[in-house]
Amino acid sequence: MKPLQLWQRYQKYLYDNDTLGLRLDISRMNFTETFLKKMQPRVKEAFKAMVALEAGDLANPPPPRGEGRMVGHYWLRAPQLAAKPDPRKRPHIPANANYCKEIEDTLLRIKKFAADVHATGQFENLLVIGIGGSALGPQFVANALTTPADKLRSFFFDNTDPDGMERTLARLDLAKTLAIVISKGGSTPETRNGMLVAADAYKRAGLDFAKHAVAITMTGSSLDKQSQSWLAQFPMWDWVGGRTSETSAVGLLPAALQGFDIDGLLKGARLMDEATRVKDFRKNPAMLLALMWFKAGDGKGKKDMVILPYKDRLEFFTRYLQQLIMESIGKERDLKGRKVNQGIAVYGNKGSTDQHAYVQQLRDGVNNFFATFIEVLKDGGNPLEVEPDATCGDYLSGFFQGTRRALYENGRESITITIRHVCPGSVGKLIALYERAVGFYAALVGINAYHQPGVQAGKKAADVVLGIQRQILNHLRANHGKFFSADAIAKAIKQPGEVETVFRICEHLAANERGVKQQAGKTVCDAAYAAA
Amino acid sequence: MKPLQLWQRYQKYLYDNDTLGLRLDISRMNFTETFLKKMQPRVKEAFKAMVALEAGDLANPPPPRGEGRMVGHYWLRAPQLAAKPDPRKRPHIPANANYCKEIEDTLLRIKKFAADVHATGQFENLLVIGIGGSALGPQFVANALTTPADKLRSFFFDNTDPDGMERTLARLDLAKTLAIVISKGGSTPETRNGMLVAADAYKRAGLDFAKHAVAITMTGSSLDKQSQSWLAQFPMWDWVGGRTSETSAVGLLPAALQGFDIDGLLKGARLMDEATRVKDFRKNPAMLLALMWFKAGDGKGKKDMVILPYKDRLEFFTRYLQQLIMESIGKERDLKGRKVNQGIAVYGNKGSTDQHAYVQQLRDGVNNFFATFIEVLKDGGNPLEVEPDATCGDYLSGFFQGTRRALYENGRESITITIRHVCPGSVGKLIALYERAVGFYAALVGINAYHQPGVQAGKKAADVVLGIQRQILNHLRANHGKFFSADAIAKAIKQPGEVETVFRICEHLAANERGVKQQAGKTVCDAAYAAA
Repeated sequence: MKPLQLWQRYQKYLYDNDTLGLRLDISRMNFTETFLKKMQPRVKEAFKAMVALEAGDLANPPPPRGEGRMVGHYWLRAPQLAAKPDPRKRPHIPANANYCKEIEDTLLRIKKFAADVHATGQFENLLVIGIGGSALGPQFVANALTTPADKLRSFFFDNTDPDGMERTLARLDLAKTLAIVISKGGSTPETRNGMLVAADAYKRAGLDFAKHAVAITMTGSSLDKQSQSWLAQFPMWDWVGGRTSETSAVGLLPAALQGFDIDGLLKGARLMDEATRVKDFRKNPAMLLALMWFKAGDGKGKKDMVILPYKDRLEFFTRYLQQLIMESIGKERDLKGRKVNQGIAVYGNKGSTDQHAYVQQLRDGVNNFFATFIEVLKDGGNPLEVEPDATCGDYLSGFFQGTRRALYENGRESITITIRHVCPGSVGKLIALYERAVGFYAALVGINAYHQPGVQAGKKAADVVLGIQRQILNHLRANHGKFFSADAIAKAIKQPGEVETVFRICEHLAANERGVKQQAGKTVCDAAYAAA
Repeated sequence: MKPLQLWQRYQKYLYDNDTLGLRLDISRMNFTETFLKKMQPRVKEAFKAMVALEAGDLANPPPPRGEGRMVGHYWLRAPQLAAKPDPRKRPHIPANANYCKEIEDTLLRIKKFAADVHATGQFENLLVIGIGGSALGPQFVANALTTPADKLRSFFFDNTDPDGMERTLARLDLAKTLAIVISKGGSTPETRNGMLVAADAYKRAGLDFAKHAVAITMTGSSLDKQSQSWLAQFPMWDWVGGRTSETSAVGLLPAALQGFDIDGLLKGARLMDEATRVKDFRKNPAMLLALMWFKAGDGKGKKDMVILPYKDRLEFFTRYLQQLIMESIGKERDLKGRKVNQGIAVYGNKGSTDQHAYVQQLRDGVNNFFATFIEVLKDGGNPLEVEPDATCGDYLSGFFQGTRRALYENGRESITITIRHVCPGSVGKLIALYERAVGFYAALVGINAYHQPGVQAGKKAADVVLGIQRQILNHLRANHGKFFSADAIAKAIKQPGEVETVFRICEHLAANERGVKQQAGKTVCDAAYAAA
């Protein structure tokens, strides 16, 4: 398309909302009016499904297609919209439920708790212990909004790597560190392990963990029971999914403690929620996004989504979106139970840094992606002119336009989102925009965006492995002094097919001197193991 | 495949090198002996090309297929192998060249400089200013090897985002900060800009930048000229590419200053280089990797490469590999000039964290990838038992095995690399393994891995944008007080097709109050601009 035609197309399809301070440019995606027209029945269905979801229907349908839960993250920004008991239409809502009040009370408690913590001046650091949705949102927001004026500095345990935890602990004066343990169900092993390692570290420092810890979890969970004597407890709700929990206590408590404007963040999300309820899809940025994702990948995820925010503060947004999009959309079956193997692969870091990494491939190589540029108008930082009439920010802006142009010239599609600056409000808007787009896209392709059966499968498989590890240790201890090959152990513990698993477990135990010693064999697979 | 068959396959194809302390398991990739046999002619050619490359041929061929350079990163770990002048066979090597001595002298100078810096005790922080290959290697190594005993703590300017730079500066006492400016050609704008912002910050702190700065660049570059009076200068060579520069001064100087064992890193890389010169492809881990990449994506990059290191310290390895692989392989044309649009998309962060992000999609969703697990046998950290007979490290290991199993059961392929622990040696080995694998893969698919024409295109496009910005400013200043639409400006500066570019530049300039003011129009595209 010639430049002036492209400019016409830009103006025709531009979504510009001055109140939101956000623009969405889809002119460089190869869709036609015919495509938009063809999609209308699906668009209508998607809007209908979203209305039902916001009203409190079991949008996450009962098993086997889902978890039989409501999906209420939009209520967190507009509590008065939360579903109310309705024995006829929504019998799944308990008669005494008052979600609106719970949301409002929690927000007030978060603000009061943060103010109290700031008032005492006891704490300088925040150690957030969580994984997945309990880490990615807080990490994204912490990185996006941090300034030297932060009231607490944030650190994370987001894995069960003991070495990683030790590295983080080495940077902390625990007497001045407030720990937040975040686990919706309370039983995620990585988070449980992180909590135990943290508690052990506090103990070894002569400190009482309970006096330094806060829990965010569902009422009645194991974490809820364990944390009764801690500084505070905040609720998670059945109807908020992990990957859409940034505007619940999961995201708001760490943000408030760091001193960020959580009302601004909530307001941004609320404004975007309103903008993405608009039924005219041409005036709905989330539906436009979802339609473009559909077009790019033929509704089957045939193209990867490359996210390129031209701002260091948004570097973690891609990782946040990886979870939000891939965990929501990456599903085996559609809502009718048919095998569809849906998904969209998401990757990226930041511009212009990534231009010196993989943009070579994006421009010249395999055309298996579409890019999403995020432009931030306000530069911030030092306005030094590095050349006459050119600042560092002009260069960043020039690289953004240049790369976008270079991709277009080579037939690579791109979407561009423009925001004014990175602040609590725009962060809330970006989160809400993608939450809604994911919901719409899932409806367009007919899948449930709100469960994650594959995550459970991985956990179960890990449990099998740890179960075999216990059997191995028992067998070796019961036969102290004797060496067994992996093959012999597998047979002895009545798991003859699990030789490789046994072998890998024994190698790991021996390497860590965990009660197992290794005797080399002719080849690595012939090694033998005994209790040490 | 049944578990015992899989165990047979594991043993049959396992690459295990006890000296290297590295295993490569390709048993869960769906290749056959027929495939391996069919690939033999290409394998032979790839080995031949690699021998020529190591001997100093112009493996990066002359334009338009390449840059007409030698590719010498393997010499950095074994200087005696460096190409020598040979007027008949290699007329491109100057008669007075002594690369071996240059490499050895530079290494000695790096060690001496680091020892001197440590001896003075003046510096606590290291500010590395670089982008692409001048940042990703140092970032990966810094993150992999950092301990509380680091002699200097590392920080990075890896972009031209002024706000990002300001955030980094806010954390630094510049009097105690040593800056390293890394730019091979000396003219990369992001790095030049970073240097100017850093120099400005030192100046405003009343400090002399020259007394706090070191340069790594090619002799004769603009940076070389500018840095004559700095604390030190270290060379880059024409025959070392940015993305394979970690074992040159680019990687070694920051590593040595942080107090890491650079001899260990070099030795690890050298040992891997030796192991990947073995002509029997079954005993060559880099050729096995390259063959698996070929098999997975049909030699056309049809499948994404997902990197899952189960260790926090290796989290940056994926970003390092994104550049190494995508910039090397993502090429439009093959060596014969045919349009092939090659590439492999690479993404990932770390396990088990990513299990709570996108492993849902990997297991259940679109099967458009193959995974590479990196297992680290030694756990480190707190050996606390979080349950009887189970540590955090056992969980990490269990999740690794569990996820691998869950993927396999759903027909998703994976490669597994096992190392003993993360140390200078194993980091050197991983780098050298992938450097060689990328070279082999490029030969298997017939492309030049050692140039990056698309990066130049992005830079050029950015220059065009900045050029238009200057024209806009000149036009508005010459017509002070008058407002012009983007359309009118584009016509006035004789770039009538560039309305969108002009519009975006004006919006950016106005948002930053950079001498341009905006007057709203009926729609955003009708806004008008004047000199402020």
